[in-house]
Amino acid sequence: MADATAGPDLGPLLDSIAFDPAGLVPAIAQQHDTGEVLMMAWMNRESVAETLATGRACYWSRSRGRLWRKGESSGQVQRLLELRVDCDGDTLLLRVDQTGVACHTGRRSCFFRAARDGRLEIIAAPRIPPDRLYGA
Amino acid sequence: MADATAGPDLGPLLDSIAFDPAGLVPAIAQQHDTGEVLMMAWMNRESVAETLATGRACYWSRSRGRLWRKGESSGQVQRLLELRVDCDGDTLLLRVDQTGVACHTGRRSCFFRAARDGRLEIIAAPRIPPDRLYGA
Repeated sequence: MADATAGPDLGPLLDSIAFDPAGLVPAIAQQHDTGEVLMMAWMNRESVAETLATGRACYWSRSRGRLWRKGESSGQVQRLLELRVDCDGDTLLLRVDQTGVACHTGRRSCFFRAARDGRLEIIAAPRIPPDRLYGA
Repeated sequence: MADATAGPDLGPLLDSIAFDPAGLVPAIAQQHDTGEVLMMAWMNRESVAETLATGRACYWSRSRGRLWRKGESSGQVQRLLELRVDCDGDTLLLRVDQTGVACHTGRRSCFFRAARDGRLEIIAAPRIPPDRLYGA
């Protein structure tokens, strides 16, 4: 991991992000070249700082209550190309290069269900069997 | 507005969305053909139902505490092409056709600031002066 102290002072940038009362902000991950929306996750101040310092997406796992270095168990990492902040400062857009698949189901994107005629239809198949993502 | 009672029963689809304790779910709006991520807003059960019934994006404005029919004052409406639900059911992706601009600043996308060398840089100019969006 890069030494966060070696880069520019991120304080002013981090201060311009409007974290919610829980200290979190939603972050959308988008594949930089195809435009595919891969997933949405949450970040806290520490995970934004680490992501900018290392160039690898790091989120905050609300269910596990700890930093979640995307791909740490599955190998499906996200290399950061650009981090964008929206007009209100309360949502982030990460332009990434996704290794393999973003979704824990083995699909490229987490958004694999679409409303069709009032029902949810599965519109994408897994590319990797989930048990191979999180091998025994 | 379409008669919501004329369409299919949306109950099962709405039941499969994991609204948060405030009854809301984040919704990402993406331009369907260019892939551009336009904005992120919030929806409640009623706004999802109206969006599916009318084919026009309707969000829940947290600041105003009421339904927000995107474009109701600016004319910058979003026609819905497809509504997708993520693997956990707690984030929506709206594939839309955006009239004009999505951002209240007059920019096409709300994500017009990017981290560069540890600072936020404005990377897109307004296409419409904001005072023309919300004319006197």
